[in-house]
Amino acid sequence: MTDFFKGISPVKFEGPQSSNPLAYRFYNKDEMVMGKRMEDHIRPAVAYWHTFAWEGGDPFGGRTFDRPWFGDSLDHARLKADVAFELFDLLDIPFFCFHDRDIAPEGASLAESNRNVRTIAEIFARKMETSRTRLLWGTANLFSNRRYMSGAATNPDPDVFVYAAAQVKNVLEITRDLGGSNYVLWGGREGYETLLNTKIGQEMDQMARFIDLVINHAKKIGFDGQILIEPKPQEPSKHQYDFDVATVYGFLKKYGFENEVKCNIEVGHAFLANHSFEHELAVASSLGILGSVDANRNDLQSGWDTDQFPNSVPETTLAFYQILKNGGLGKGGFNFDAKVRRQSLDPADLLHGHVGGLDVLARSLKAAAAIIEDGTYDKAVDARYAGWQTPEGQAILKGQRSLDDLAARVEKENLDPQPRSGQQEYLENLINRFV
Amino acid sequence: MTDFFKGISPVKFEGPQSSNPLAYRFYNKDEMVMGKRMEDHIRPAVAYWHTFAWEGGDPFGGRTFDRPWFGDSLDHARLKADVAFELFDLLDIPFFCFHDRDIAPEGASLAESNRNVRTIAEIFARKMETSRTRLLWGTANLFSNRRYMSGAATNPDPDVFVYAAAQVKNVLEITRDLGGSNYVLWGGREGYETLLNTKIGQEMDQMARFIDLVINHAKKIGFDGQILIEPKPQEPSKHQYDFDVATVYGFLKKYGFENEVKCNIEVGHAFLANHSFEHELAVASSLGILGSVDANRNDLQSGWDTDQFPNSVPETTLAFYQILKNGGLGKGGFNFDAKVRRQSLDPADLLHGHVGGLDVLARSLKAAAAIIEDGTYDKAVDARYAGWQTPEGQAILKGQRSLDDLAARVEKENLDPQPRSGQQEYLENLINRFV
Amino acid sequence: MTDFFKGISPVKFEGPQSSNPLAYRFYNKDEMVMGKRMEDHIRPAVAYWHTFAWEGGDPFGGRTFDRPWFGDSLDHARLKADVAFELFDLLDIPFFCFHDRDIAPEGASLAESNRNVRTIAEIFARKMETSRTRLLWGTANLFSNRRYMSGAATNPDPDVFVYAAAQVKNVLEITRDLGGSNYVLWGGREGYETLLNTKIGQEMDQMARFIDLVINHAKKIGFDGQILIEPKPQEPSKHQYDFDVATVYGFLKKYGFENEVKCNIEVGHAFLANHSFEHELAVASSLGILGSVDANRNDLQSGWDTDQFPNSVPETTLAFYQILKNGGLGKGGFNFDAKVRRQSLDPADLLHGHVGGLDVLARSLKAAAAIIEDGTYDKAVDARYAGWQTPEGQAILKGQRSLDDLAARVEKENLDPQPRSGQQEYLENLINRFV
Amino acid sequence: MTDFFKGISPVKFEGPQSSNPLAYRFYNKDEMVMGKRMEDHIRPAVAYWHTFAWEGGDPFGGRTFDRPWFGDSLDHARLKADVAFELFDLLDIPFFCFHDRDIAPEGASLAESNRNVRTIAEIFARKMETSRTRLLWGTANLFSNRRYMSGAATNPDPDVFVYAAAQVKNVLEITRDLGGSNYVLWGGREGYETLLNTKIGQEMDQMARFIDLVINHAKKIGFDGQILIEPKPQEPSKHQYDFDVATVYGFLKKYGFENEVKCNIEVGHAFLANHSFEHELAVASSLGILGSVDANRNDLQSGWDTDQFPNSVPETTLAFYQILKNGGLGKGGFNFDAKVRRQSLDPADLLHGHVGGLDVLARSLKAAAAIIEDGTYDKAVDARYAGWQTPEGQAILKGQRSLDDLAARVEKENLDPQPRSGQQEYLENLINRFV
Ligand SMILES: [Co+2]
Ligand SMILES: [Co+2]
Ligand SMILES: [Co+2]
Ligand SMILES: [Co+2]
Ligand SMILES: [Co+2]
Ligand SMILES: [Co+2]
Ligand SMILES: [Co+2]
Ligand SMILES: [Co+2]
Repeated sequence: MTDFFKGISPVKFEGPQSSNPLAYRFYNKDEMVMGKRMEDHIRPAVAYWHTFAWEGGDPFGGRTFDRPWFGDSLDHARLKADVAFELFDLLDIPFFCFHDRDIAPEGASLAESNRNVRTIAEIFARKMETSRTRLLWGTANLFSNRRYMSGAATNPDPDVFVYAAAQVKNVLEITRDLGGSNYVLWGGREGYETLLNTKIGQEMDQMARFIDLVINHAKKIGFDGQILIEPKPQEPSKHQYDFDVATVYGFLKKYGFENEVKCNIEVGHAFLANHSFEHELAVASSLGILGSVDANRNDLQSGWDTDQFPNSVPETTLAFYQILKNGGLGKGGFNFDAKVRRQSLDPADLLHGHVGGLDVLARSLKAAAAIIEDGTYDKAVDARYAGWQTPEGQAILKGQRSLDDLAARVEKENLDPQPRSGQQEYLENLINRFV
Repeated sequence: MTDFFKGISPVKFEGPQSSNPLAYRFYNKDEMVMGKRMEDHIRPAVAYWHTFAWEGGDPFGGRTFDRPWFGDSLDHARLKADVAFELFDLLDIPFFCFHDRDIAPEGASLAESNRNVRTIAEIFARKMETSRTRLLWGTANLFSNRRYMSGAATNPDPDVFVYAAAQVKNVLEITRDLGGSNYVLWGGREGYETLLNTKIGQEMDQMARFIDLVINHAKKIGFDGQILIEPKPQEPSKHQYDFDVATVYGFLKKYGFENEVKCNIEVGHAFLANHSFEHELAVASSLGILGSVDANRNDLQSGWDTDQFPNSVPETTLAFYQILKNGGLGKGGFNFDAKVRRQSLDPADLLHGHVGGLDVLARSLKAAAAIIEDGTYDKAVDARYAGWQTPEGQAILKGQRSLDDLAARVEKENLDPQPRSGQQEYLENLINRFV
Repeated sequence: MTDFFKGISPVKFEGPQSSNPLAYRFYNKDEMVMGKRMEDHIRPAVAYWHTFAWEGGDPFGGRTFDRPWFGDSLDHARLKADVAFELFDLLDIPFFCFHDRDIAPEGASLAESNRNVRTIAEIFARKMETSRTRLLWGTANLFSNRRYMSGAATNPDPDVFVYAAAQVKNVLEITRDLGGSNYVLWGGREGYETLLNTKIGQEMDQMARFIDLVINHAKKIGFDGQILIEPKPQEPSKHQYDFDVATVYGFLKKYGFENEVKCNIEVGHAFLANHSFEHELAVASSLGILGSVDANRNDLQSGWDTDQFPNSVPETTLAFYQILKNGGLGKGGFNFDAKVRRQSLDPADLLHGHVGGLDVLARSLKAAAAIIEDGTYDKAVDARYAGWQTPEGQAILKGQRSLDDLAARVEKENLDPQPRSGQQEYLENLINRFV
Repeated sequence: MTDFFKGISPVKFEGPQSSNPLAYRFYNKDEMVMGKRMEDHIRPAVAYWHTFAWEGGDPFGGRTFDRPWFGDSLDHARLKADVAFELFDLLDIPFFCFHDRDIAPEGASLAESNRNVRTIAEIFARKMETSRTRLLWGTANLFSNRRYMSGAATNPDPDVFVYAAAQVKNVLEITRDLGGSNYVLWGGREGYETLLNTKIGQEMDQMARFIDLVINHAKKIGFDGQILIEPKPQEPSKHQYDFDVATVYGFLKKYGFENEVKCNIEVGHAFLANHSFEHELAVASSLGILGSVDANRNDLQSGWDTDQFPNSVPETTLAFYQILKNGGLGKGGFNFDAKVRRQSLDPADLLHGHVGGLDVLARSLKAAAAIIEDGTYDKAVDARYAGWQTPEGQAILKGQRSLDDLAARVEKENLDPQPRSGQQEYLENLINRFV
């Protein structure tokens, strides 16, 4: 037991009336919502990197946080792991996520780096014997080291591809060993800084080859979790190939991976791609590739991926509606890919971020469930499309009408369809009744 | 002969030293560039809508232009056609493009509307006997009339789908009759204003059904031009399904149209989707769906699709480089989907816009050709990827290595690939030598 | 009594549990909040233009609404006025706002246009004898007519300046006659479309001259309302001189108007200027120029001024906090500068927009008041700045220390100030307790 | 002589035909342009921070550059100074700029830090005896150290204000001692991360007090350079008080500094504030506060301040036009606030960036001068405003007409001013003749 969180008690559910800033007001893990425990809907996770590895720097300033585990040794990494599980316990959170480089220092060779990761993973395994926190997903950091500056899978140098492949193999196997539910690929360097030095077609083929290697190895080693790509349009690269859900879908289809890989959708990345979060969820759901979620938010005025904790119940309710309509997230969950601001120096701030975020998720889940259980909203939307359920609507959809057929009908019936109200304000007000 | 352009002489090539604002300084149609006539590279077109139908309005103000052909009668439409071909002749431009509603007034029924379009199309046909201007593409306006406010193919009311289908049939047949090289589908209303009232999956199925009808009808009537979708992320809708090239590709793949349909890529739409124009061209080229181009530019500070004439040679040179590398545009061309500003009231302004735009295209084409002929640039890029041409690089790409193989090699060779300069500044300066 | 709203009953307060979509759930005008009637805090107004004059067009489509008063005659204007006051009564709303061109048709000369405006204003005056709705503000439309395409006050042609001045004189006098609380100047055309044809210094001098004329005339005619400038960064112009609150303040200071003119701050305009709404309010409040508010919201993914009805309680709560801290809005109020979407065709949609918007304002006002009454939040912020209340802090602020003094103190005390947590997550969660 | 630039020869002017990537093709320092040496127009400077101190990191990756002077000792700083002047000589550049923390390591106390800065400054002084490179401006880094995370002048803790003041005193005095032409204040932390913990009015007063201290100290020590504020809207802070030129002007006017302080305008910061660079220059020029320029460019698709080297002649020509019209930059100059990309690892890349940038500036200067010397453009703009030079135009501008006068004239003359073409396309084409 470290003394990092000294004086901070485990966070409990105290109900909406509580004014205790370190109590849950809405997150009540065993409360049943639409027939399922709240925790089983949300499957929330702490992100190791933001919470334990980020030092508080930004492009114009260095480290602001003062953590006893900052340093390059395995001992530092062990202390970090101790504190991490202390936070998991304080929050009573069922999951965490990590990159290999968050948890253990890079060594002089990949072999040494991999051993370091394995060493800490074994510590995790032991801690998981007494803690209830499990691994939502693991991933390899293929972006921080300068070797990846021009891409990992999409590097113009095939040796970097090879190195990245070997690094992924290690994390994928460790993820399996720790019982991880998912393995995530985020391609922050898979893109370009300038199109001037880039062959897009070549790089796409490399990326597809890489994914294929991962899929095959997962099967070979008996990893039965989901393999997820995390879309993001840019940052750190000027352009990233996994721009958004629709782009990832096109890539998966081109190379035949659409049944093997799903998406891990991040709120802030949707925003950077000029979409709403609920749009990305709806698209993924309609394409059958909704895998998991990175919960956070961007600042509305910033062009950066600010990774703030979610704090808007109305916005998150719309997201949960899509997820519930999708039948939930399955093996996925809500990873808090979020960090406290660099001015939030105190250990307690790490709790404030997660407690507030979890309460927003819980409140939003309940609101979305209430919308569905009330039924008024779904009925209104169904009514709008009712014409397509008629025999003629179905005949068109099924391809039983030609352009000539349809033109003939317009002429014969002197068809002149009249527009009907889209009822946007009514629907917005209706949703507002539940948030 | 109308007197609209009274006093304006045909625009001639006078060379770079000319200070005549209504002369071409670079556009010299018969000049050979990389073995092909300049005109055959560019295949420039005047857009009927912006040049003859737009009235100068914006969201806060009405008509500023004073044109004798503004009005709802067929006589107005005939006058408009006369002036249009006078402009084509003055500019000596080989192509034009139109929507059905630009050229002829909507009637009391679709049958009457279609007859109006046919009437003007026959006038076009006669004019084309004496003018050298041809039809680059035709398209149906499925967005202005209130019946399409909630979508055409993606309307929740199947009768609107049917009406739109009948309208497209007419324009597609007229496009074939006029010898059009392409038929374009721009889905400005195929998307949503609010996700709250929208079923994305249902609407995508409708859209695919619509495209399928068009493809089949084109075959049936012997239309041998290209069928093109024009990507645009938003505007007028909040979200449009044809967001960008990569999104359109995913759609085509999902429904099996990837060999039947290509993209018509607009500069300003690339910008709205947070891409550079050359990016969209490069993506389309790598996916085999680069069909044609809408030349214009957006204001950099505006979030609107401002449809200004292109005026940056450095930017357009990068675009032409992609097009030349693609082997040109084939049946496509450069449609000026551009309008003079609403304060540009004078008939001469219509010429200033096109003359300046054509000169920018010509100068950019020559610059791009010079880059390729010089060869330094291409060599630099090829050198960057040389490692993938080695036997081991090729073995990886061809799927002859597993993750285990690669990991073993890292260990065995103690692989530690070193980064190499991406040379962005060198390459930018190199390009600047040619613009 | 027209039959436009046939079947729609007056909107009543029914409380949060009501599921009647045309009832107020939170807006309860006589409810006391921090010692003042809710209505007196909000002073809500219907905007004549969006609600009665807008036809539903967008840049790619024309009129979607079907209103019996659309037309160019005074009779149409009279019918519009009848319906307007019927809506005011149905909503039980205390204020409205108008431009001259919304309420009456433009005539063949300015004299005739002015007479038309006067005619309808007299109808308003009579209606106000039986209705409780009053005029929050009047304004002149100096942007729709083509004569203003290059600016009104800032037009390169002084005759346009003169024409605009004469138009403003008429509306200013009518605003006084109707007991209006404010007169607003929105400079949608006071800016430029291209810097290439623009002399900024010259145009700023013209604009200042124009404001000076208005201030003097207001005094001369005994208008005792506020004169307000409405900041907006762009749209319809590429750049507008009244970019944001800080820019307007610089302009007012330069020409000496800072005690004569305040700001009318619009939510969507703040967003277009890359600010949050609460930021603009806080800036105006700190500079003493917070006059009134245009309530609406922009779509987050659009670069347009979409003028949607407000629907986010968390966001609007932060705005109300700033307003309450400013001591309220005085003669200002909340004008709904908002329109139902172009697909919202039905008369009832006009009510849905306003009812939902008013409920959001009411709920936000109560939340902001609760934050202030609770006191925890204000105390946390005050504590952060407590150092500046010490004698040394005050001495520095009052200019009693030189750079040499301060440097000497650092050396002497070996000063090494330590950063303290900014507590952003704690404060966000605290605010979330009240929304 | 270090061996860092081993094998690289001094960069010479070789003319436009040169294909030597490390020759100037347009920058010919002694060439006369409008009666002044090119170098005296441009006054270009290397920025110490980007070129020598930046390590190549970004938010997702660490150091990519491998420089022998990276490290925390004074010996490292001395080596860095040696290499810096070697680059200055290779480029034959007349100026450089620095922050205190770029040139020397931070010590255990401010006194030690100041001594370190002084030590290196004395090395600079000695080098300047044999090098022709002079100091364009100095500045204090008040943003990197965690003590400044919540602001320097605007920190809620007055001790941080005091510390910052003492730091500025040192750099200001050193800037004077080195003969610097300007002293710059960039307030990257003077703003807020969240309005929730911020008192804007209080912080503005602090900032004004700080500026006042600097102005007074500059006078006291006989610094006769310009004092400059560098506007930037955001990054690293969410909102920065020096948002743009117009905002800075309002601040200067409020506190009475408008004759003491000018602006250092950065291209990329204009872009972040949603302005064009030439707009910011034109505004500053019209307000009399155009002081100096930070030359660079942002990526058009990024929301970050990417600080790339300028590479667009058409864009920079418009900027130079504004500068020439302002009568030049006086004591200001063009500081390359630009860095090579993080993948540009090679020593030669540092030269490619500057050589390309300087050539773009030189070419743009010549183009802008040609536009002015040709005269057609200026005449066209003057003609547009000719009406304001008539006696009646002048009478209005001078305040000799009231609103009543103007309204009477409209009535009497039945005034109906007709719009005239804004000629945007003509003017754009005209400018394109010179670039
Ligand atoms: Co993420
Ligand atoms: Co993120
Ligand atoms: Co287009
Ligand atoms: Co467009
Ligand atoms: Co407004
Ligand atoms: Co607005
Ligand atoms: Co700068
Ligand atoms: Co910068």
